[in-house]
Amino acid sequence: MIKTDILIIGAGPTGLFTVFEAGLLKLKTHLIDALPQPGGQCSEIYPKKPIYDIPGFPEILAGDLVNNLMEQIKPFEPGFTLGERAETIEKLEDDTFLVTTNKGTKHNAPVVAIAGGLGSFEPRKPPIPNITDFEDKGVAYIIRDPEVYRDKRVVIAGGGDSALDWSIFLADVASEVTLVHRRNEFRGALDSVERVAELSKLGKVNLITEAEVKELKGEDHLTAVGIKHKTKGDIHFETDYFIPLFGLSPKLGPIGDWGLEIEKNAIKVDNSYDYQTNIPGIYAIGDVNTYKGKLKLILSGFHEAAIMCQSAYQKIHPDKKYVMKYTTVGGVEGFDGTKKEAKKEVVKAIN
Amino acid sequence: MIKTDILIIGAGPTGLFTVFEAGLLKLKTHLIDALPQPGGQCSEIYPKKPIYDIPGFPEILAGDLVNNLMEQIKPFEPGFTLGERAETIEKLEDDTFLVTTNKGTKHNAPVVAIAGGLGSFEPRKPPIPNITDFEDKGVAYIIRDPEVYRDKRVVIAGGGDSALDWSIFLADVASEVTLVHRRNEFRGALDSVERVAELSKLGKVNLITEAEVKELKGEDHLTAVGIKHKTKGDIHFETDYFIPLFGLSPKLGPIGDWGLEIEKNAIKVDNSYDYQTNIPGIYAIGDVNTYKGKLKLILSGFHEAAIMCQSAYQKIHPDKKYVMKYTTVGGVEGFDGTKKEAKKEVVKAIN
Repeated sequence: MIKTDILIIGAGPTGLFTVFEAGLLKLKTHLIDALPQPGGQCSEIYPKKPIYDIPGFPEILAGDLVNNLMEQIKPFEPGFTLGERAETIEKLEDDTFLVTTNKGTKHNAPVVAIAGGLGSFEPRKPPIPNITDFEDKGVAYIIRDPEVYRDKRVVIAGGGDSALDWSIFLADVASEVTLVHRRNEFRGALDSVERVAELSKLGKVNLITEAEVKELKGEDHLTAVGIKHKTKGDIHFETDYFIPLFGLSPKLGPIGDWGLEIEKNAIKVDNSYDYQTNIPGIYAIGDVNTYKGKLKLILSGFHEAAIMCQSAYQKIHPDKKYVMKYTTVGGVEGFDGTKKEAKKEVVKAIN
Repeated sequence: MIKTDILIIGAGPTGLFTVFEAGLLKLKTHLIDALPQPGGQCSEIYPKKPIYDIPGFPEILAGDLVNNLMEQIKPFEPGFTLGERAETIEKLEDDTFLVTTNKGTKHNAPVVAIAGGLGSFEPRKPPIPNITDFEDKGVAYIIRDPEVYRDKRVVIAGGGDSALDWSIFLADVASEVTLVHRRNEFRGALDSVERVAELSKLGKVNLITEAEVKELKGEDHLTAVGIKHKTKGDIHFETDYFIPLFGLSPKLGPIGDWGLEIEKNAIKVDNSYDYQTNIPGIYAIGDVNTYKGKLKLILSGFHEAAIMCQSAYQKIHPDKKYVMKYTTVGGVEGFDGTKKEAKKEVVKAIN
């Protein structure tokens, strides 16, 4: 059982920055995210796209923002449960919460901060009847660890950035990469499209266009796929893995059944002075919440995280009063023993 | 008369970022600040000190944050009235506001955003009876333009960073720099103290310690000061300028008389969904406002600026509905004709 002070659900920018604000208050944090890496959409959907409205950055790539935040929170040693979705919540007798993931990992904390963005990103699955039977047996919708595919035969399906970029990456890892796409045209960064065309010419990526994977074959593990080609008809194609990359669509998911007030697919927080939900001790911050005047901006998530941590502190330490110190004055004292602080003034005589 | 959409009072980080958020909504902005340069406290009080709690910056010098914000808002061409204090406000018949500074500059706008921080920074003046008679006639409390002192004799008083740093800077500009300090010890960055000691040895800064300026002499303009030395008694010292640098202390100032609800030296905003004050059309954002749960953090000022601009847009364009577009999707279109945007995807066939 993982124990912490604030259990943060969602490791996007808002969830990550919560670690920092909690850390300033000497509160420990642990994050759960369904995606295999921290950063939320910024890492998974648009890591190479620029954001222009983060204050102080005239332009920053979404992936770089995540890297910066990871560095900023490092002194506070957050824990991570990645690639698992928070599934159930239970209030224990001692007034703390028990959150269990879809893989059974248990987390216990007096405060839960839901920083779930638009929800957990669920892969769009192709309509192949027995596809769920092959999940974790040759079929994957997200590539968590590319090394799994070393020297294996891989069929990727899709026509967007994800399909293009993983075909390029796995061309150097897998023994054989085949990219299957319904159309002849791909939609993605020009670089990526051109690189796949080049790899196809070099014979490092097999391209099967105007075709769809319609059938999965194998017993304990996938051994082949059935491809339906527009003009050539049915093709039996042997492979070890099938990875359909048709995008992720956000779903509020199991959190929607936690008894929280939901409005327009977001969690209602009645007030904006602490972003607490209708269940005391559960907060909702960032894109996942809604209140009068709400703006779904990353910079608003940062503010909400800071405010929420003050309220969490009072809940965790009802007898203490926290006196805010500016980081410029008080510095940042990490749980890892590091201390950052402004150069002190000296008092020195001149003779 | 200067006309704009949102008149921003205070050019600290919150005021500056308001320009950006307003700009995204195609609203023009103009800023008034009592200090001679933008950046508020960050530029005037601690430009070289690190801040650790700006999201996405593990560490940033306050002065660099201001520079970054200035670059970020550049496309929206804000106007500036600097070195003047917003003095009076008047509601005109057309429901717009007329704000006049202490120097008589007039500004007109349908919306006023007070981003005044801790107030306007007023210099601490030494207790010399006739000092006000010499203001702008040889006595200055803030150095707005160092060139004024080229080839002149300057007496600086004070024992902190400001007195040290300006003594160092003016040593290369003025014909004679004299630093008068009550004590023998200075309080400031080690570098600065050591540099002044060095300049004193080189004869480029006259150091008179354990002494105070007690008297100002001259007719139309300052010609000499009377210095009281601890052991040597009274000294008549000829000079063209006297610059006491005893720090700035923030005062809410004239804004306190604008009919706004004030609580603990801050402007009350009842709600936090648009940060409007008790006077419709006047908003208060950043450290200058107060509401339940308020945190005086720069990152909160950024959020408040974003929220406030949405409300201002509705006030200025009651018939239009603004549909928010993410900068990553819609880019940033400057008033100066520049356009920043993410690289577009291509749709391209691979043959």
